[in-house]
Amino acid sequence: MATSKFITFEGGEGAGKSTQAKLLAARLTALGYEVVLTREPGGAPLAERIRALVLEQAPAAPVAECLLFAAARAEHVAVTIAPALGRGAFVICDRFIDSTRVYQGTLGGVDRELIAAIERTTVAPHWPALTLMLDLPPQTGLARAVARGATNRFEGHNAAWHQRLRDGFAALAVAEPERIRVIEAARPVEAVAVDIWAAVAARFDLSGPV
Amino acid sequence: MATSKFITFEGGEGAGKSTQAKLLAARLTALGYEVVLTREPGGAPLAERIRALVLEQAPAAPVAECLLFAAARAEHVAVTIAPALGRGAFVICDRFIDSTRVYQGTLGGVDRELIAAIERTTVAPHWPALTLMLDLPPQTGLARAVARGATNRFEGHNAAWHQRLRDGFAALAVAEPERIRVIEAARPVEAVAVDIWAAVAARFDLSGPV
Repeated sequence: MATSKFITFEGGEGAGKSTQAKLLAARLTALGYEVVLTREPGGAPLAERIRALVLEQAPAAPVAECLLFAAARAEHVAVTIAPALGRGAFVICDRFIDSTRVYQGTLGGVDRELIAAIERTTVAPHWPALTLMLDLPPQTGLARAVARGATNRFEGHNAAWHQRLRDGFAALAVAEPERIRVIEAARPVEAVAVDIWAAVAARFDLSGPV
Repeated sequence: MATSKFITFEGGEGAGKSTQAKLLAARLTALGYEVVLTREPGGAPLAERIRALVLEQAPAAPVAECLLFAAARAEHVAVTIAPALGRGAFVICDRFIDSTRVYQGTLGGVDRELIAAIERTTVAPHWPALTLMLDLPPQTGLARAVARGATNRFEGHNAAWHQRLRDGFAALAVAEPERIRVIEAARPVEAVAVDIWAAVAARFDLSGPV
């Protein structure tokens, strides 16, 4: 049995993270577990205010965005995630450290040592026990994002950018196979949910008593 | 002649940093130099909004405050400091990296490697050419802060805290004697200003033509 019931969803745009996070939360809730479903950036009062600030006014310095998201994460962990894990709840978070590594690190060029130092000081010891990385061919992600009218500045990129995004996430999965489970997301919602449930049940030994 | 005309004022509460920064700015302006007088946290539109956010809602996670100030600094450097230095202006900043090192590092316990990584990614290559560190016996700083009705959460501390603050700044001055000039601040404003001017004139060779 894992000591910390912390699950994160990661992946590119249009991969179905929010949908699958909700389905998983509902399934765990139906089994009698307490579930805290949250997201980043946000998930705590000050973190939501930081999120609003970043969306309203794009920072002039690329590293400023990373630092603001990092501050929001520190609050999120302190106020929401750590207390929930402490009382034994499942925490399901839509985006977490891997999104920072890929969006701000791989794609944004933010210093890797800075990102690592931020992780050590904002996340530790609350590392995800399981990360479900929803993988999608770049063209599919792009088409899904366009179809839902996505226009935020992270989604308004071309296919080459989506390819770099996918490659960035794939590299993380290779580096941490114990934590990160890659899920093929270019399939019907139900089929993806089945694979996710299998990964969660295995990781947290959910065949046992609740 | 120094290539970068970047001067910072540092020191504890009630040491006269703001007063001396204004006097120095006026003197340089009178000599015909362009001077940008600024302060931290703040000094750029997004940075001022972050400052307001931190003052309005104290972060639950101590490291969040450090990260928010770091984001504000990244904006301040990108929007205000770097362009001014680039056109050859003097930049005079009331508090900068040394305040972070002492308040968040020495006193706040924030990870030193995080602070170093933040400096590399938000400040470099715009390091101060001269830092005027106004030194005051802790009891004097405390009394001055009380006299002016200071009530912010950095000023409402006891004498032992002010002593640690002074020791923290003193340690930095010892480590970087080339950059940091310690100025005895427990004297009349005019006497302090004379020493500051001597340090500035020597550092930037102001005996030469403007």
